[in-house]
Amino acid sequence: MRAIVVESGRAELRDEPRPVVSPGDVLVKVALAGICGTDLEILKGYGNFRGIIGHEFVGTVVQGPDALLNKRVVSEINCVCGKCDLCASGLSIHCRRRSVIGIVDRPGVFAEFVAVPERNCHLVPASVDDESAVFVEPLAAAYQVTRQIKLEPRLTVTVLGTGRLGLLVAQVLAHQKCKLQAVGRNPRTLELLDRKGIRSALVGDLRQWGDQDVVIDCSGSADGLATAIRMVRPRGTILMKTTVQDFGGVDLTPIVVNEISLIGSRCGPFDLALDALARREIDTAGMITRRMPLAAGVEALEVAGQPDQIKVLLKIGD
Amino acid sequence: MRAIVVESGRAELRDEPRPVVSPGDVLVKVALAGICGTDLEILKGYGNFRGIIGHEFVGTVVQGPDALLNKRVVSEINCVCGKCDLCASGLSIHCRRRSVIGIVDRPGVFAEFVAVPERNCHLVPASVDDESAVFVEPLAAAYQVTRQIKLEPRLTVTVLGTGRLGLLVAQVLAHQKCKLQAVGRNPRTLELLDRKGIRSALVGDLRQWGDQDVVIDCSGSADGLATAIRMVRPRGTILMKTTVQDFGGVDLTPIVVNEISLIGSRCGPFDLALDALARREIDTAGMITRRMPLAAGVEALEVAGQPDQIKVLLKIGD
Repeated sequence: MRAIVVESGRAELRDEPRPVVSPGDVLVKVALAGICGTDLEILKGYGNFRGIIGHEFVGTVVQGPDALLNKRVVSEINCVCGKCDLCASGLSIHCRRRSVIGIVDRPGVFAEFVAVPERNCHLVPASVDDESAVFVEPLAAAYQVTRQIKLEPRLTVTVLGTGRLGLLVAQVLAHQKCKLQAVGRNPRTLELLDRKGIRSALVGDLRQWGDQDVVIDCSGSADGLATAIRMVRPRGTILMKTTVQDFGGVDLTPIVVNEISLIGSRCGPFDLALDALARREIDTAGMITRRMPLAAGVEALEVAGQPDQIKVLLKIGD
Repeated sequence: MRAIVVESGRAELRDEPRPVVSPGDVLVKVALAGICGTDLEILKGYGNFRGIIGHEFVGTVVQGPDALLNKRVVSEINCVCGKCDLCASGLSIHCRRRSVIGIVDRPGVFAEFVAVPERNCHLVPASVDDESAVFVEPLAAAYQVTRQIKLEPRLTVTVLGTGRLGLLVAQVLAHQKCKLQAVGRNPRTLELLDRKGIRSALVGDLRQWGDQDVVIDCSGSADGLATAIRMVRPRGTILMKTTVQDFGGVDLTPIVVNEISLIGSRCGPFDLALDALARREIDTAGMITRRMPLAAGVEALEVAGQPDQIKVLLKIGD
């Protein structure tokens, strides 16, 4: 099968054997995949990953139990042991022996087929089309913030960064009780938010600093954290959504002096994301800037890194 | 009066004018002062401070209202406006216009006299002698951790660093409900903890990593944070007590991936510290390694930076 393989920081279209389907796994024929900031960081060396990359996808089960066979599915990305101390304590998302699809020790989805654990699969309802379903994984990650902070009407919340993830987080929070603003660098994505009635501003236009109760760093860049530290009030909270290969020398002293809480945030609840898409609460269509075939996957990864792009999709199956 | 003045990264014994006593301030004749890690960082350039340094002290009020006159006092270090948004919201410790005694825009206590706000003063009961009272400020900072984490008997808590602050934090937590260990580099300070029945270990001897619910970084060094990140479990909490001039390039990626909470922690409740000292719950005497006169203050700052030292005191008044 054709697949996009990363090795030594380079991506290549290769002919690879079909995945081995281990016990507990199902085989999925990938229909559509999304390119995420983490994929671009992997290309820069993040996590020293080698192999087929990609972790956002929707596809159809072609080998597996009857309940899933020929059904459209999305899949959680953490493949866990179910036995270690963290799995036993309900933190299996952080399983000590986990592999992560297309990120850690497990082939990803920029390929015609992928094997994923049966228990990771979620059925996609007919009301959610492929171009929406491919957003379930990042949208779930956006919903994670609602489980990490107690939102209240009086809370001032800034989503920092209005790229792939920031646009999803901002839309999720627009349906929650808080005083929301999104702050970014790209006038085009700010317009997209304006159309949804979400207050937004360019970073360069900000007059007030150090007054936000919560800042959610979705900047995807190392300097986002420094900006977030400037924006948040003393004893405020920064949720960190950004994983980059190198954070450089961010000055952490204000975290201590201002008693800021910095909380890492990663994957989230697929069920909430699927429900929101079924309710058509989140505009994903407006975020798709390119659709390219798997054969052009290497070029697609370059395109996805351009500042005028939001979500680049890889059309893989029929 | 004689005072230790820092300018351009150098400390000097100088003859300075007595402090101006502004409305709302009292004048304190300093009896005893303590050298803190922050003082040593200021000498390295932290906060670009210039002037008389020092913020841990006990003394006698020689000019002020009857309620305080001729009384022994300790003083909180944040001098606040009482009017800004943070003061109005109960966060006056983070006042936007604050000065901080011997740290930010305000002369410190390595001097014969210091002017401090009347409302910052706490009377020292007769049962607490000067050599205990001089520990109130750092001990209050140690108590702050008990207000930032909800301690429970099942929680595994590591105090990382067994220097000036770590020894206080470990002693405070020994009276709280949690599974406590202190981890350091100095066998001598670990012995001090052993004598109090506090479980301790050398960093180099640790076998387990990534399993602590809470790690409190009192290392006072930039690499403490990296060690804390290795020690804490996924979704665990790191309290950051360390302020250093330069954190270098600590890899923050595990904070995101492991969804760690990193919480800054600074000053704390003087009343709890005074009560604990009055109850003789905290051994401060065992932490005093040198007593030097103000005239030898410059040398004392050098001595305090040596690895075999814990708390170096400056004897200033009678």
